[in-house]
Amino acid sequence: MDIWLTTLITKTPQDGFELAIKMSRMGVKYTQPDMEKLKSGRKAYEDNAQFLIAASQVVAINYQTVAKANNYWKSKKS
Amino acid sequence: MDIWLTTLITKTPQDGFELAIKMSRMGVKYTQPDMEKLKSGRKAYEDNAQFLIAASQVVAINYQTVAKANNYWKSKKS
Amino acid sequence: MDIWLTTLITKTPQDGFELAIKMSRMGVKYTQPDMEKLKSGRKAYEDNAQFLIAASQVVAINYQTVAKANNYWKSKKS
Amino acid sequence: MDIWLTTLITKTPQDGFELAIKMSRMGVKYTQPDMEKLKSGRKAYEDNAQFLIAASQVVAINYQTVAKANNYWKSKKS
Amino acid sequence: MDIWLTTLITKTPQDGFELAIKMSRMGVKYTQPDMEKLKSGRKAYEDNAQFLIAASQVVAINYQTVAKANNYWKSKKS
Amino acid sequence: MDIWLTTLITKTPQDGFELAIKMSRMGVKYTQPDMEKLKSGRKAYEDNAQFLIAASQVVAINYQTVAKANNYWKSKKS
Repeated sequence: MDIWLTTLITKTPQDGFELAIKMSRMGVKYTQPDMEKLKSGRKAYEDNAQFLIAASQVVAINYQTVAKANNYWKSKKS
Repeated sequence: MDIWLTTLITKTPQDGFELAIKMSRMGVKYTQPDMEKLKSGRKAYEDNAQFLIAASQVVAINYQTVAKANNYWKSKKS
Repeated sequence: MDIWLTTLITKTPQDGFELAIKMSRMGVKYTQPDMEKLKSGRKAYEDNAQFLIAASQVVAINYQTVAKANNYWKSKKS
Repeated sequence: MDIWLTTLITKTPQDGFELAIKMSRMGVKYTQPDMEKLKSGRKAYEDNAQFLIAASQVVAINYQTVAKANNYWKSKKS
Repeated sequence: MDIWLTTLITKTPQDGFELAIKMSRMGVKYTQPDMEKLKSGRKAYEDNAQFLIAASQVVAINYQTVAKANNYWKSKKS
Repeated sequence: MDIWLTTLITKTPQDGFELAIKMSRMGVKYTQPDMEKLKSGRKAYEDNAQFLIAASQVVAINYQTVAKANNYWKSKKS
């Protein structure tokens, strides 16, 4: 696997959220590395609300990790 | 994606809860950015208790993150 | 939405548990604000053990948040 | 609801585990307080491995809370 | 129930993982104490990937608890 | 079971992610040690998006543990 994750630190809470989304996708990709299969499989599911909610849950769990790594982007001054 | 998350800090526990709901919705939106499909897909599910409980679980996970970022809205005095 | 969450602090562990239940219900209500639909949808599910367990899981996640906010109701003396 | 949870503190890790099981059951009971329905509903599910695993997951989440409240039952001496 | 959990402390990360597996099994056993039913129910599921993943998730949650109790098996020297 | 987990410490966030993936697989393997059954069972599921998302969730939970053990790979200098 190529290098895709060198740090958990991001500049903003939203950048962190987008990193959490990338991590969630990579969790899938390690399990099913064949991108073609992945895309065709996904097509059937992407309008499925149950699937979207499950994906959103993985993002939420990964975001907990990223947010903590960044000390919730709280300014160190306060 | 437009800027939608600049801080995890909110004034009250309820504001934080509503931010957690927004984060849960955005987790879905990143996976399925086509709002039209999202709305039609959701229509079939929104009366489905299983779906509602799954959505509520994502909110609960995101609320853990937001509540911690806000130190549980505890007054710093006490 | 009316004000329903002004603090995460409760007097006892059980009060905190009941707050976690309220938070779990509100997570559902934000997703499906139409109480009539919610009630009719729920009727079909409330005897369904799978649904009850899923609901209990959301309560458990919210209780983690509430218990931590209250420092596990440990007396500050000890 | 009667008083059933006055403290999260237990003497041993196993007592804490049994408290986590009680909390998981109470999470269900608050959602479906009719014990007769609950029992008949459960009968159909209790041999169902998927249901048992889901119940075990709720116990695991509640045990996180109880174990932390008890500082993992580590002797304060060390 | 016999005594089966007297400490969360283990010598190595892998011993801790195996304790997390035991805790996951005990969470099931408390819900369905009849081992015969449990075994026959499990036979139908043990080749089912969805079931195996759900079981692996419970192990992951319990491992969070055990790893924290052991301070992640980090040498106290460093 | 052979020794497979001697430390939770890794050099980079990505190494930690790959450890989380290994832990997720081992959680499955302890439940179903027969690799032949596991492989045939998996074949049917590996194109199934719901399965892939569930697997990704287990990875996310294990990654929380690994990331915390590594103090989020933050340089001790800063």
